[in-house]
Amino acid sequence: MPSVEVINCPKGIMRDLAEPYFDVWRLDRDSMIDHIEYMYHDLGVVRAWKIPRSTLRMFLLGVRERYQDNPYHNFKHCFCVTQMAYSIICKLRLRNKVSVDHLGALLTAAVCHDVDHPGLNNSYHCHARTPLAILYNYKSILEQHHFAVACRILSNKERNIFRNVNNRDEVLTNVGDLILATDLARHKEIMDTYRCNIDTGFDFKNSTHVLSLLKIIIKCADVSNEVRPETVASPWVDRLFAEYSEQSAREKRERLPVTSYMDPDVVNVPQSQEGFIRGIMLPMYDEMCRLASDARAYFISPLHDALLRYEIQSLRERGV
Amino acid sequence: MPSVEVINCPKGIMRDLAEPYFDVWRLDRDSMIDHIEYMYHDLGVVRAWKIPRSTLRMFLLGVRERYQDNPYHNFKHCFCVTQMAYSIICKLRLRNKVSVDHLGALLTAAVCHDVDHPGLNNSYHCHARTPLAILYNYKSILEQHHFAVACRILSNKERNIFRNVNNRDEVLTNVGDLILATDLARHKEIMDTYRCNIDTGFDFKNSTHVLSLLKIIIKCADVSNEVRPETVASPWVDRLFAEYSEQSAREKRERLPVTSYMDPDVVNVPQSQEGFIRGIMLPMYDEMCRLASDARAYFISPLHDALLRYEIQSLRERGV
Repeated sequence: MPSVEVINCPKGIMRDLAEPYFDVWRLDRDSMIDHIEYMYHDLGVVRAWKIPRSTLRMFLLGVRERYQDNPYHNFKHCFCVTQMAYSIICKLRLRNKVSVDHLGALLTAAVCHDVDHPGLNNSYHCHARTPLAILYNYKSILEQHHFAVACRILSNKERNIFRNVNNRDEVLTNVGDLILATDLARHKEIMDTYRCNIDTGFDFKNSTHVLSLLKIIIKCADVSNEVRPETVASPWVDRLFAEYSEQSAREKRERLPVTSYMDPDVVNVPQSQEGFIRGIMLPMYDEMCRLASDARAYFISPLHDALLRYEIQSLRERGV
Repeated sequence: MPSVEVINCPKGIMRDLAEPYFDVWRLDRDSMIDHIEYMYHDLGVVRAWKIPRSTLRMFLLGVRERYQDNPYHNFKHCFCVTQMAYSIICKLRLRNKVSVDHLGALLTAAVCHDVDHPGLNNSYHCHARTPLAILYNYKSILEQHHFAVACRILSNKERNIFRNVNNRDEVLTNVGDLILATDLARHKEIMDTYRCNIDTGFDFKNSTHVLSLLKIIIKCADVSNEVRPETVASPWVDRLFAEYSEQSAREKRERLPVTSYMDPDVVNVPQSQEGFIRGIMLPMYDEMCRLASDARAYFISPLHDALLRYEIQSLRERGV
């Protein structure tokens, strides 16, 4: 079994990899693969799942190949989400509390969570009544698709990192559940379940409890841009609204209902981000940090900084 | 709307296309696309669905690209099944009895019914507990996969032949039902439903009745090799057992249960084909031809010829 040392990943960068302030923009496509490989090694997943080195690499290359070249939903977004999930695992000190199967499922879900994203969201697919929407009965269309594409990649023997896992049904089912949890339409339901588990006493020995936590982690990681420093976050916000703008242009062209928060003629970016941080991010990160309140400095404080920035920006725009 | 005439398809071949004795081996990859295009035109599907010519072509090229290069389950098999489905439509005189939406769904299901087939059957996927098996809960694994891949191809706007169809949900759902019907594990259930409809009086105005007929047609087309002349059928039988042999070798290598009818050390090809014709094909084609008894000459007689050939071959092998 290859050791962590053999991985081509500069030491300096490795140290920062667990930090939410990690600068994802300085990595090229191949370094991102190296860094994800490192996470699988570091969390003990490679050893526990007996993944041959070439299999892990072939799997990650297969996934990268299937990410589309969208402004936002591309392989670098995949890397960011995976890195933030890893960072949360480290900052919440979950290594010894959560089983390696669960950690591996979380990493794998993060890696695959937007694979083959077409740059058009579920709402577009519903309104345009695309074949994918019909296939998945208008429910979590893209998320079901991401999981199906992940399964197809894994179906190639040389890319199947679960090949030597005994309870691979359970692990892969968890991966699917975690990818499906990234559908924001299910936000309330997932938050309620997790909050209930925390309120009644979170039990790390209860796998239902653990799975509800992992869903919160992948959800936090998926929308984590504003936790990052302004210089790292800001290009992501630009890219997100560039992708939104493309979608709303297409919706207009095809005479479909236009998703208002995407329409550059309507949306106010600072206000929109402020609303997202207040309404979605802060409540979710707050609940998550109840498991390790000292992690608040890493996740909650930067969110308040971002809020302040957007408030000032809004005031300026209104000429105050 | 382009007319049928503009299609690059030699007249002589076009005439034979509706015949079960059509020689599928003389067509190259591009001619197969031309011929399938012709079927969509000829059955009125292009006109009814307002399919732009480039869309139909892009769709078919997309499907062809996703057929793997297996000994048996390859694009030429797809062509054979589509051509036989078309032949059955013609010989059973269904053009004016079945709606164009149903005819189009049948053609499309035939075209897509084995797309991305990996050359390993459902039994292998179950025993090897592959990610696809887990994704589809060990039920009609490959068939669900073929339909999902078809939906992915159609999700590309330039390849979506359903784009201008009003009731595209219903049409695409029918395509899915027809692809799923090709799972031989569901043979008895599908035969029973169809037989019941015929026994109680088949009603072409009842879409449940029609769908049960279309399932029988795609099933008949899927296993139609032995309806074809010996020179056309024989290479298919060789290819089928070559693919089987590769699977059983892999099952042995991976210490999985070996599918006995695939094992070249165990199987007797003439006996196996005889059993398949008697047990599956003849009863199914018999029921199908109850709708137009004069079609028996095209489908039942060649099957009896094939049976006779295999019986003689078996006698010879036993040194009689």
